[in-house]
Amino acid sequence: MLIVPEALIAGLVTAEDAFGAIEACFAAMARDEAYNFPVIREALGEGRQYGFKSGLDRAGGVMGVKAGGYFPGNAAKGMINHQSSVFLFNPETGRPTAMVGGNLLTALRTAAASAISIDRLARKDAKVLGMVGAGHQAQFQLRAAAKVREFEKVIAWNYHPDMLPKLGEVTAELGLPFEAVPLDRMVEADVIVTITSSPAASLMSAHVSPGTHLACMGTDTIGKQEVEPALLARARVFTDEVAQSVTIGEAQHAVAAGLIRAEDITPIGAVIAGLAEGRQSDDQITLFDGTGVGLQDLAVASTAVRLAEERGLAIKVEV
Amino acid sequence: MLIVPEALIAGLVTAEDAFGAIEACFAAMARDEAYNFPVIREALGEGRQYGFKSGLDRAGGVMGVKAGGYFPGNAAKGMINHQSSVFLFNPETGRPTAMVGGNLLTALRTAAASAISIDRLARKDAKVLGMVGAGHQAQFQLRAAAKVREFEKVIAWNYHPDMLPKLGEVTAELGLPFEAVPLDRMVEADVIVTITSSPAASLMSAHVSPGTHLACMGTDTIGKQEVEPALLARARVFTDEVAQSVTIGEAQHAVAAGLIRAEDITPIGAVIAGLAEGRQSDDQITLFDGTGVGLQDLAVASTAVRLAEERGLAIKVEV
Repeated sequence: MLIVPEALIAGLVTAEDAFGAIEACFAAMARDEAYNFPVIREALGEGRQYGFKSGLDRAGGVMGVKAGGYFPGNAAKGMINHQSSVFLFNPETGRPTAMVGGNLLTALRTAAASAISIDRLARKDAKVLGMVGAGHQAQFQLRAAAKVREFEKVIAWNYHPDMLPKLGEVTAELGLPFEAVPLDRMVEADVIVTITSSPAASLMSAHVSPGTHLACMGTDTIGKQEVEPALLARARVFTDEVAQSVTIGEAQHAVAAGLIRAEDITPIGAVIAGLAEGRQSDDQITLFDGTGVGLQDLAVASTAVRLAEERGLAIKVEV
Repeated sequence: MLIVPEALIAGLVTAEDAFGAIEACFAAMARDEAYNFPVIREALGEGRQYGFKSGLDRAGGVMGVKAGGYFPGNAAKGMINHQSSVFLFNPETGRPTAMVGGNLLTALRTAAASAISIDRLARKDAKVLGMVGAGHQAQFQLRAAAKVREFEKVIAWNYHPDMLPKLGEVTAELGLPFEAVPLDRMVEADVIVTITSSPAASLMSAHVSPGTHLACMGTDTIGKQEVEPALLARARVFTDEVAQSVTIGEAQHAVAAGLIRAEDITPIGAVIAGLAEGRQSDDQITLFDGTGVGLQDLAVASTAVRLAEERGLAIKVEV
């Protein structure tokens, strides 16, 4: 089998690579060529979370599992709190084929998903990007978003305002003006990316103008919430996987409140595969509920393995 | 992290090592120091089965997952049909610590479980061992059983009689007489190990004498069945994990028929930990329903890693 250590990923997989891999993955899901297995998620105590996301992509010949979680004691030990590894297997024989560091790949695949939603669903003339959330992952979302539209300005809000300057630095690197704003000024945004781990809605329906595209990327478990459910009722809602969207995604709250139904939510893969319409008018609000599925992890890990092999960087081990 | 390839396992982990590791694992489960996460099991088509068994042993500091399954096309390609790998992680930090070949370990941990049940539950004066099933795994069960009682004879039955001579050879290696018998002659056995993948009961209650201990090791999924449910109603029933026993183990049928309840089943770990009685009389039939839990895989994999490290055989890879 091949090993691609975490330290190699930054030099191997670009945002563009991740974009292509995730787009193909979403399309394969929509064509029923790929599916996710049930998610295992366990609380280990002391705030530690651990679990497995896994799946099979028949079209891509990819099967595997991402094992990982959140370990809040790591930072004090000089390690990042989110830790994950991806293991790939040959779907015909069950033999392990690769192990890939999953930390940076998780950031890249999450950023790719929101960028794909912007590429497919935002108005072509979108000028102002609004960021809700300014943590580490927000920087990846911002960089990926800037690749798919010609934004002229970035406005941002964060619960802890002291984290906003870092996002301002990334915006400056992209050559764009940056402004920290209160939430009600998100009405100026054409695209809004929410990337928080909030337990209650921050962004209200009144903060969003007609024609906006939203990528809600922070809610991946029961009890998290980024936006007011009324906003989903106003919007055409898309997601990576409907089953996750209505149970652990942002849509869980609007569905529980009876404002929308699972049947109202369109898989983004269906848009990519040409099986469903995307944005229907310039005034329509589109909202992508990005929950994060195992197949995304397998897709970017598989890309990392291919690139590492091509460049002679993968470590071979006989197992 | 450390890698312990499949090819090293045979020279590293003995049946005795597996026995000790699995006994400690069952006891930790009974003391609520260790628990299994939900099992993922997916049919991949063309008879292929794939899934994940995982868990956390707080006492042993072991967390991980066994990924593997059954790939019936492998034999024709010169590979074994059952393929599995065990991945271990530091439960404090989530960092991967080891990858271990899981094929032989799965055979060893399954054999250890039935041997532990014989050690703890069979009459001390047991003389005749009955084997129901004569496939590859039956040889492991037989060898492990012979270590815990002074058997004087082995009798065996198999659905395909042509496989019995191979089991006879293993018995001869152990220095014991062997006889192929019809099922009704299992009344002569003091201990019976069933290790088949049968969809319907082979061994009937009338085939079993009072005072016998049975280790039913073959049923690990819905729809498999080795013994008549009436036999469980006659017996004191033990298992590795009650939740699995009543859903995917041999007890599924007796529970569904209303003959026994989950509360009637004793975890073998409780006997090992001194929290529950084992055999209560020489006439009592004891029956161990061995379903196979993820913690067993982690326990023997962890043992393999320790032994490989001690002997300088583990392969180190920076991830």
